[in-house]
Amino acid sequence: MAITVAVAGLGNIGRYAIEALETAPDCRCLGVIRRKASLGTDTLGLRGVPDFASIDDLTAKAGRPDVVLICGPSRSVPEMAPALLRQGFCTVDSFDIHDRMTEVVGTLDSAAREGQTVAITAAGWDPGTDSVLRALFEAMVPAGTSFTNFGRGRSMGHSVAARALPGVADATSITIPLGGGRHSRLVYVVLEEGATLENVTATIKADPYFAHDPLDVRAVTKEQLPFVADASHGVLLERVGASGLTSNQHLQFDMRINNPALTAQIMVSCARAAVRIRAAGTVGALTLIDIPPVQLLPGDRMANVARLV
Amino acid sequence: MAITVAVAGLGNIGRYAIEALETAPDCRCLGVIRRKASLGTDTLGLRGVPDFASIDDLTAKAGRPDVVLICGPSRSVPEMAPALLRQGFCTVDSFDIHDRMTEVVGTLDSAAREGQTVAITAAGWDPGTDSVLRALFEAMVPAGTSFTNFGRGRSMGHSVAARALPGVADATSITIPLGGGRHSRLVYVVLEEGATLENVTATIKADPYFAHDPLDVRAVTKEQLPFVADASHGVLLERVGASGLTSNQHLQFDMRINNPALTAQIMVSCARAAVRIRAAGTVGALTLIDIPPVQLLPGDRMANVARLV
Repeated sequence: MAITVAVAGLGNIGRYAIEALETAPDCRCLGVIRRKASLGTDTLGLRGVPDFASIDDLTAKAGRPDVVLICGPSRSVPEMAPALLRQGFCTVDSFDIHDRMTEVVGTLDSAAREGQTVAITAAGWDPGTDSVLRALFEAMVPAGTSFTNFGRGRSMGHSVAARALPGVADATSITIPLGGGRHSRLVYVVLEEGATLENVTATIKADPYFAHDPLDVRAVTKEQLPFVADASHGVLLERVGASGLTSNQHLQFDMRINNPALTAQIMVSCARAAVRIRAAGTVGALTLIDIPPVQLLPGDRMANVARLV
Repeated sequence: MAITVAVAGLGNIGRYAIEALETAPDCRCLGVIRRKASLGTDTLGLRGVPDFASIDDLTAKAGRPDVVLICGPSRSVPEMAPALLRQGFCTVDSFDIHDRMTEVVGTLDSAAREGQTVAITAAGWDPGTDSVLRALFEAMVPAGTSFTNFGRGRSMGHSVAARALPGVADATSITIPLGGGRHSRLVYVVLEEGATLENVTATIKADPYFAHDPLDVRAVTKEQLPFVADASHGVLLERVGASGLTSNQHLQFDMRINNPALTAQIMVSCARAAVRIRAAGTVGALTLIDIPPVQLLPGDRMANVARLV
């Protein structure tokens, strides 16, 4: 019996989530929830999947989904997930605002317990699978230093932050690793009429998102912007230290990926885990470090143990 | 309250396990179980830890341990673990004979359920943490090819297999990666009196452990052998494939380590997980892909979520 999934939001991650669900052998996408619904199933990115204006509408017309993937912006997660959880749906999101992580886990945990269901939050690659690697690296090498080096690639968070600043019509922010977990920011801006590059640079430099890193701001036209903004990204996660009393243990994870495609795939793998974990009698909010890795994979546990262990 | 641990066996892994327990903030090593016990706590490798001839002797004199780390050879695990599990101890082992994996998980699972306790098996780096990475890589990139490239380093399994062959007084087998998950074997042998390198090479080549890989056998003296046999090892784990319908996703894990030090550290991290999992009401045999990564780390779950996610 397939796991039934609804996709909430048809931005970048929502479109890739539809594709990831199409390739998952044990999942079925019932539909997309978005404000501008009923434009027909041939709308760009829908790939034949029907769209609906609300979860109630989707449930009434396409059936009740086991899981809702929350594919809107991070700040929409704590607004959207609790109501779905209280109605008993599992939710999966890729919430990534680090300072609010424990608060959001707490909020989702209460709602999930009320609805007797499971929320998996921060289910992207960072936070998400990188968090699993950081945990695993510490279990292997407890004494030492880890560095998470992002990029080169576009940071969605920094791009959104730059776009919201006065004088900026549009922007894309590229993260460039400097080593040792430090980064510089290269921000391409489309200036609003009357704004100067000098003033906009000062405004960006003063923003808490950018204040602590070396910054390079360049003005481009609206037409040029798409040519510097694509979905390529990566990370280099390093840990050097000691296992027990033995030093010189070197661990390194290096990844080069399409950013929203990976995020959406991880969310779909977590949809599977959420349904299984709930079926086994656990309720509440979990992050990827709380989940047995085998639960993320299709197929029988013992077959996966035989194949992967 | 510290987790109390007994170390069964004082070979390479046992010695490093004592060191890893010494550095674990939440564990206490009650003693070592070994056949030649009572040589005094100043014996090489004991680091002041008392040794005992049996688990009963250790329990009577040093207290009942929560967990027994089985640090003998792999083949001793299915002989030794079930009796300990039936007595209600948690066990952790680094069993690594791939063909017997599901059989051993089954045997340990029955015994653990009888004793209402938890066994964590295959808790080394391969099988073990590499298994977690293989599972995670598939959850991120479901369509594609993974390669596990071992080495350069000494394979304990191949060294033991070579040592057991006729004409071989002693041996050490080095694994050299050839790419694409393939390996060649470089075997240094100390010949028994009357044996020839030609005959011994043919015997090794015919052994199932060596039959499928390019082989290079070199004769050394008893005195020379220690100079080609050390504990350095490593792995390069690669996966290239697609997340959903998006190709060109590249993942890579590269590690350079002291082999028994890492194995022992992972076993100690699993001792902690075993006790927690049992306390939460689960019994049975688990592998590393069955364990939430956060359970491997000391400290409070939410503090680790806040720090690592």
